[in-house]
Amino acid sequence: MSCGIGFQVVARAGAARLGRLETAHGVIDTPTFMPVGTAATVKAMTPEGVAATGARILLGNTYHLMLRPGAARIAALGGLHRFMNWPHAILTDSGGFQVMSLAALRKITEQGVEFRSHLDGSRHLLTPERSVEIQRLLGADITMAFDECTPFPVEREQAAASMELSMRWAERSRAAFAERPGHGIFGIVQGGVHADLRRQSAARLVAIGFDGYAIGGLAIGEGQATTFAMIEATVPALPADRPRYLMGVGKPADIVGAVRRGVDMFDCVLPTRSGRTGQAFTRSGALNLRNARHADDPSPLDPDCRCPACTGFSRAYLHHLTKAGEILASMLLTAHNLTYYADLMAGLRAAIAAGRLEEFAFPGAGP
Amino acid sequence: MSCGIGFQVVARAGAARLGRLETAHGVIDTPTFMPVGTAATVKAMTPEGVAATGARILLGNTYHLMLRPGAARIAALGGLHRFMNWPHAILTDSGGFQVMSLAALRKITEQGVEFRSHLDGSRHLLTPERSVEIQRLLGADITMAFDECTPFPVEREQAAASMELSMRWAERSRAAFAERPGHGIFGIVQGGVHADLRRQSAARLVAIGFDGYAIGGLAIGEGQATTFAMIEATVPALPADRPRYLMGVGKPADIVGAVRRGVDMFDCVLPTRSGRTGQAFTRSGALNLRNARHADDPSPLDPDCRCPACTGFSRAYLHHLTKAGEILASMLLTAHNLTYYADLMAGLRAAIAAGRLEEFAFPGAGP
Repeated sequence: MSCGIGFQVVARAGAARLGRLETAHGVIDTPTFMPVGTAATVKAMTPEGVAATGARILLGNTYHLMLRPGAARIAALGGLHRFMNWPHAILTDSGGFQVMSLAALRKITEQGVEFRSHLDGSRHLLTPERSVEIQRLLGADITMAFDECTPFPVEREQAAASMELSMRWAERSRAAFAERPGHGIFGIVQGGVHADLRRQSAARLVAIGFDGYAIGGLAIGEGQATTFAMIEATVPALPADRPRYLMGVGKPADIVGAVRRGVDMFDCVLPTRSGRTGQAFTRSGALNLRNARHADDPSPLDPDCRCPACTGFSRAYLHHLTKAGEILASMLLTAHNLTYYADLMAGLRAAIAAGRLEEFAFPGAGP
Repeated sequence: MSCGIGFQVVARAGAARLGRLETAHGVIDTPTFMPVGTAATVKAMTPEGVAATGARILLGNTYHLMLRPGAARIAALGGLHRFMNWPHAILTDSGGFQVMSLAALRKITEQGVEFRSHLDGSRHLLTPERSVEIQRLLGADITMAFDECTPFPVEREQAAASMELSMRWAERSRAAFAERPGHGIFGIVQGGVHADLRRQSAARLVAIGFDGYAIGGLAIGEGQATTFAMIEATVPALPADRPRYLMGVGKPADIVGAVRRGVDMFDCVLPTRSGRTGQAFTRSGALNLRNARHADDPSPLDPDCRCPACTGFSRAYLHHLTKAGEILASMLLTAHNLTYYADLMAGLRAAIAAGRLEEFAFPGAGP
């Protein structure tokens, strides 16, 4: 394998692409959804269970892992793949988003972000160089550039300044990244809800040159129409032969819309977090298993689903587990939701391959 | 299969027996340990995961299930086996123990126990007849007679009166039980820590005639020596051709001692509950995974264990999951502890079969 991350576009349907992403830990068919494994575990799932859903790439969180158990410790134990017994690919975020949403007493300077841990109050400094180093210690197949997630809403001026800072940090991140076969680094387009800033940001990143390009700072309250508009503004400015990743998105309908607009990769806590609160994505729409109408229902959650929850149990049982606060409720509903997302992505890939993406509609995914 | 529960003693070693317990849901090799599946789930385990440990019979709790989701509901959904997707055998307790330890405003009369639910305060009456009916609605392979668990310590007079009440309830339980092929009912010996009361109780139950005999009201603070003394007082008074079940026991060393004294069946929350608090039973003794000394340890929890926790992960990882409060910690440590218990029981069975029980010592099980 040559240096960096391989990416082949196998088929196209409009702006959408069917692709193959080649990493040191296997090939991933795109469009793909990456389950979130924040603290070196996809919550309530074994790695075998995650792989059984069809997932072949996970997202790990630099912020959480640097604080606990620590990046050097994970490196000494053989890296994140070995630590969490996940033989497939891992993308790590840069810590930029969590440091802003979780850490205390943040202080942003040109150098980076100084903050205190939300766990024990300890003091840390995260810079582009340090973020990239941590991601190398973790052994990430795909490293993300360190950026500032521009809040929403903000004034245009602030969005522009924030984007500019992220671009300077992107350059430093790229410089700090050590090339290794099968490993790559993605830049992150920022610019808030301003199409011109997004285009500027993309141009800056392309000039630096990354293995792939992420679109960050979206799906944080701006609404789906604006999200889609920002994708449409950004995608034409990105190289056609490199993967595109929409960070933190999203609902099934968001994913379908973004794939149609040329996005290849996604991550979101929605299927896992929802599973732990009794929410299920099904081919007949989203369900709340806590609802009493399921109490006597012998039918499966989703008769067309292949997951352990749907092949082994009734809605009545899942309702009971959810009401009783049983761990198995989280286990089964997380497995189900990740399977639903995996099947949605497989459906999208099949539709692109067949040239039928126009009429693609995944049951329950919404318009 | 003839009516009731089949039981064959295949080999003996002193008082210990190697047996085969035949139920409507399969044959169980004894001595056996029954994982506790309180609320129609062995906490933090899928049914497949439980079966993978080697378990072929579970314990279900009548008290919990009658309150939530309700016995009639489970019956309408096809019974407890189908509800929780467990194809192997199930023994249900009578509710007598939990009603005393969990319910509010208990009032014991000759008729039964009136109480309020710990979940919603609703009023319920549990009698021998009602308990047996609930266990039939659940579809238990093995029904337990309704009894009063005599507290410890109590005066001899109170222990005697409590035992007498339990024996009258045993007679009513037996009369209420509907014979079905592969299904049986066990009586429960009471009598506190008084050998003569235990012998009287056993004689009363044998006169009534049960498919098997449990020893109840032990391991509630009286100490191992007294537990063993009570087993020794009771076992000779029980039929040699019927299974014997020591309720709620226990630690590995308690089980080994009780098997040596002729007990065939056990249940205890210890392996499952401990697993959810970071405690592991291993061949090098009990470990607390929260302990910082595990933080950098790349070795498996127990190198001689075949479970998913030991074959896939390091002590360092399990420590991390435990510290982070991750659900996967509960999942892996519960699977490990149940596997340890299953392997302990398999070791005991092999030792009896080989006539080497005298020198049997399971690593980590203690003296």
